[in-house]
Amino acid sequence: MALDAWQGQVKSTDNLFNKLSDEQMMQEVSPSRNRGIYLLGHLIAVHDMMLPLLFLGESQYKELHPIFVDSPDKSTPNLPSVAELRAKWTAQVENMSKLFAGLTPDEWFTRHASITAEDFAAQPHRNRLNVVLVRTIHLSNHRGQLEFLLPKG
Amino acid sequence: MALDAWQGQVKSTDNLFNKLSDEQMMQEVSPSRNRGIYLLGHLIAVHDMMLPLLFLGESQYKELHPIFVDSPDKSTPNLPSVAELRAKWTAQVENMSKLFAGLTPDEWFTRHASITAEDFAAQPHRNRLNVVLVRTIHLSNHRGQLEFLLPKG
Repeated sequence: MALDAWQGQVKSTDNLFNKLSDEQMMQEVSPSRNRGIYLLGHLIAVHDMMLPLLFLGESQYKELHPIFVDSPDKSTPNLPSVAELRAKWTAQVENMSKLFAGLTPDEWFTRHASITAEDFAAQPHRNRLNVVLVRTIHLSNHRGQLEFLLPKG
Repeated sequence: MALDAWQGQVKSTDNLFNKLSDEQMMQEVSPSRNRGIYLLGHLIAVHDMMLPLLFLGESQYKELHPIFVDSPDKSTPNLPSVAELRAKWTAQVENMSKLFAGLTPDEWFTRHASITAEDFAAQPHRNRLNVVLVRTIHLSNHRGQLEFLLPKG
């Protein structure tokens, strides 16, 4: 169920990005708020950080973390282009989908990398599946904002 | 995990509503988009519809469904006041929290009211807990939009 919800949100967000032109992606989602390009980079970076957290390998796009996680929008002079970010988003969706499909149900209920085995014994809900659940909610939060880049109606 | 996620999103949204004045709630979250008051009513109405869907009783606020689910914002001349809606939101949060706490884990994995017993046999993920998961994501989507009612920074 949680994995279906994740895939559903990723798919809806992907559809939304496909509807938005590079020009629309350079707009703020609402006056003085984040631009589409920033939220795209932010989602890639946050999802990238899930890989080590889920014990699924190294981050692939470490260079995006300082720009799109540690810094707010409009504070970095030279952002990667929308086209570059779109390519990374697409590659990442495919890669994560494969990696997720490789985990067994039991593996999803094992600990993630930010909790020690000792703490996990007392807090078994802090498992890998819960990371996906929390990130699904995060994705939905930003997707609601990105929708404002589409023309009204 | 899914119930924690629901409670977390409800709590964050409740905190956000408490930070927003009635005046701010009358603003559009972004130019030409829904107003805060509409999204508040929409969330109450959508959550209200969860009660029969989860076999937890009748809807309590049926009068809100045509205004906040079937109709878009700014199409109904006489909306309930923000104060009225806030009171309903608060009562609903308390009521649903009690009702949810009353279900056992096994009960969460039984079918919801929109699926027949026959279909559920083949699609066991369409259970009551999944309704909560889907509504949590819906709530997060609108919470991301409601955040724009707060002053920037």
